[in-house]
Amino acid sequence: MTMSKARIVIIGCGFGGLAAAQALRSAHADIILIDRTNHHLFQPLLYQVATAALSPADSATATRAILRRQSNVTVLMGEVTGIDTMNRRIEIVGADDVPYDLLVVATGAAYSYFGHGDWAQFSHVLKTLEDAVGIRGALLGAFERAESQTDAETVGRLLTFVVVGGGPTGVELAGNIAELARSTLARDFRNINPASARVILCESGNAVLGEFPSRLSRYASSALASLGVEVRLNTTVTTIDAQGLTAGDQRIETRNIFWAAGTTARPAAQWMNLQPAQHGAISVDPRCAVIGLTDVFAVGDVASQAGASGQPLPGLAAVAKQQGAYVGKLLSARLKGKDNFPPFRYRDLGTLAVIGRARAVAHLGGVSLSGAAAWLLWSLVHLMLLVDFRSRIAVYLNWMWSWFTYGRGARLMTTAPHGSINSAERDDDKAH
Amino acid sequence: MTMSKARIVIIGCGFGGLAAAQALRSAHADIILIDRTNHHLFQPLLYQVATAALSPADSATATRAILRRQSNVTVLMGEVTGIDTMNRRIEIVGADDVPYDLLVVATGAAYSYFGHGDWAQFSHVLKTLEDAVGIRGALLGAFERAESQTDAETVGRLLTFVVVGGGPTGVELAGNIAELARSTLARDFRNINPASARVILCESGNAVLGEFPSRLSRYASSALASLGVEVRLNTTVTTIDAQGLTAGDQRIETRNIFWAAGTTARPAAQWMNLQPAQHGAISVDPRCAVIGLTDVFAVGDVASQAGASGQPLPGLAAVAKQQGAYVGKLLSARLKGKDNFPPFRYRDLGTLAVIGRARAVAHLGGVSLSGAAAWLLWSLVHLMLLVDFRSRIAVYLNWMWSWFTYGRGARLMTTAPHGSINSAERDDDKAH
Repeated sequence: MTMSKARIVIIGCGFGGLAAAQALRSAHADIILIDRTNHHLFQPLLYQVATAALSPADSATATRAILRRQSNVTVLMGEVTGIDTMNRRIEIVGADDVPYDLLVVATGAAYSYFGHGDWAQFSHVLKTLEDAVGIRGALLGAFERAESQTDAETVGRLLTFVVVGGGPTGVELAGNIAELARSTLARDFRNINPASARVILCESGNAVLGEFPSRLSRYASSALASLGVEVRLNTTVTTIDAQGLTAGDQRIETRNIFWAAGTTARPAAQWMNLQPAQHGAISVDPRCAVIGLTDVFAVGDVASQAGASGQPLPGLAAVAKQQGAYVGKLLSARLKGKDNFPPFRYRDLGTLAVIGRARAVAHLGGVSLSGAAAWLLWSLVHLMLLVDFRSRIAVYLNWMWSWFTYGRGARLMTTAPHGSINSAERDDDKAH
Repeated sequence: MTMSKARIVIIGCGFGGLAAAQALRSAHADIILIDRTNHHLFQPLLYQVATAALSPADSATATRAILRRQSNVTVLMGEVTGIDTMNRRIEIVGADDVPYDLLVVATGAAYSYFGHGDWAQFSHVLKTLEDAVGIRGALLGAFERAESQTDAETVGRLLTFVVVGGGPTGVELAGNIAELARSTLARDFRNINPASARVILCESGNAVLGEFPSRLSRYASSALASLGVEVRLNTTVTTIDAQGLTAGDQRIETRNIFWAAGTTARPAAQWMNLQPAQHGAISVDPRCAVIGLTDVFAVGDVASQAGASGQPLPGLAAVAKQQGAYVGKLLSARLKGKDNFPPFRYRDLGTLAVIGRARAVAHLGGVSLSGAAAWLLWSLVHLMLLVDFRSRIAVYLNWMWSWFTYGRGARLMTTAPHGSINSAERDDDKAH
């Protein structure tokens, strides 16, 4: 360290990057936080944006508004394309390189199609606000299109929704699509019956929410079934194309395919010419330092770090947040000359997953909870975790309104996914 | 009329079309309401979506949710491309023709560039939710881009915003852009000073809000000036291109151009092979019946109807709403065999325009109001006019939050207008 202020660059403003920046609040350093978007996204509620219960602004907040009072942070919106670790510079599209003394990589994960990259064009994923608004348009658009069709087979195909992957995101999406069809939209159409929509959840393993205790997995399966979701376990998807998919040995004709099956780290490992670990992640040591580099740290989904059991830590918001805060504190200490910071230890505060109205599961300190109690806990925890007061109030009121009316306040189609709703799709639909 | 139920088609679900459908609630008829979007848009608050104060869902509601309980209405989302008045059929992209016995055209207006159609690609308009989200992205994106630039001239160009047209929409936009820069964003940047942004309002006439009494016009001009808007009267825009515009005899370099200068009716007149009236509108008689056709009515901005003074009625939400409700009642009466319905009379309930925080003008029954009192009146009236309870609460709370914090709750960039924010624009920017 020279006597001048250290320049700390953080790439990514998800849970990990934001926590790192905030933990550096008292550091004598110039912190540059770079993100592709202008907002910190609260991913746990993104499925509610996708299913029309919340507006984008309820689950995302302008990053620079969050960090307004932290004067040692400069927020830059920019697309990183490379990291020159030799010369300690970050390459950004259309802007000067950003130099760093210390670097924190927190670029997160993207969905992976297990080598079938072409499936991406035929299915939706749920990672960004744009994804959520796109899914909302696809869901609502399917019902709109069906209302003006007369052929029963076409209507059936339009109202078939397939979610691939039975982890928390897949379960949340499937449960909420079923509720959207059976409750919110039930009385809004004249020609179709929205409640006749089929919602199918395909999971290649032998349980949904496989990381939860088996009692909770079974609860989730039966809760999904009671919402009208067809849960198909041990069912691998082998084809996805423009007309549908093959799940197990069955062909399903639909364009409403939602992929929640596998993730891969963003390409930060390549940027730094590192041999990627599992899922493309960056291997880090117990202090979150990138193995093989100096003064570079990685946190969250982009990092692969062994937990207490020796297994890699899971890709959870809680892990990212704790790692981010840890690295922030470690760097603060280091700037003060303290070098022997204790290694990171993940504190498992429990896991929660929600299925639908008054249906959720929670696993906390060895205790399993399911049903309304778990759902209430889920709601309270997520309200508390929202970063800003305004979102908390907005989300709370939207939830109250939805609870009492079964309505969803954000039933807007503002993008036309897969082209215009009125394109030649209908002729296509008729062709098979 | 045959003995079977009459089939009434309404095209367009703005203020006019929705009012017509609702006024037909007791009619023994099959009503088909066709719109290109899935929502009724409350246009008077659209500028607040564009300037990040409200979310799209706060100013728009799913049309079929509004009409859920009115069982004689079927809502269809579809893009109309033609009207066959001979065979009484509506042509819709990708769906069967929709036949009608009685037709109400309520397709509204679009922005017109006075013969300079190519200007559209270089400027933003504010008519749809997509427009509003696009403007929001352009406004916020300009500040984001500027933050990572070092050249003062480039920063100056990025932070120059020009609104063309000094009517209510132009005044609202200019005032709110200035407030966004000077209040909301003031403390959020480290490299630029958002308050240094230039906001220029160009009006070709000799007053802003020219349809208001001159005292109110003058108030609006000085209120805009106090917010930091440069108001240029008697200034005609003669060129718009990718790098800027020429206003009067001055060249202004900017990509942030917002067009609010002239409107034209949607192409419904052409669909029916009618000679269009002023601004492409459809001439209607005092009963809103389209001149030259039978059983076809037109209301709102697409219709040209003489008012009591002989002048065409203005393109106001109030006119559309009253005409729509009138035609709904006229058709209800006609279905009951009453044919001599009295002609339409517009009741002028007054006009309001808002400039910014605690700054508005109102002209009601010959009384002129300006300042905080007009602003409070504007707020109350617009809260009451929102169609659904949920939006009313959401808008009220957002306003309260903004009032006390000067914040704006929807500071999200979810589309990248004019391509990605990180495209090669910066090199361009440097080129002059």
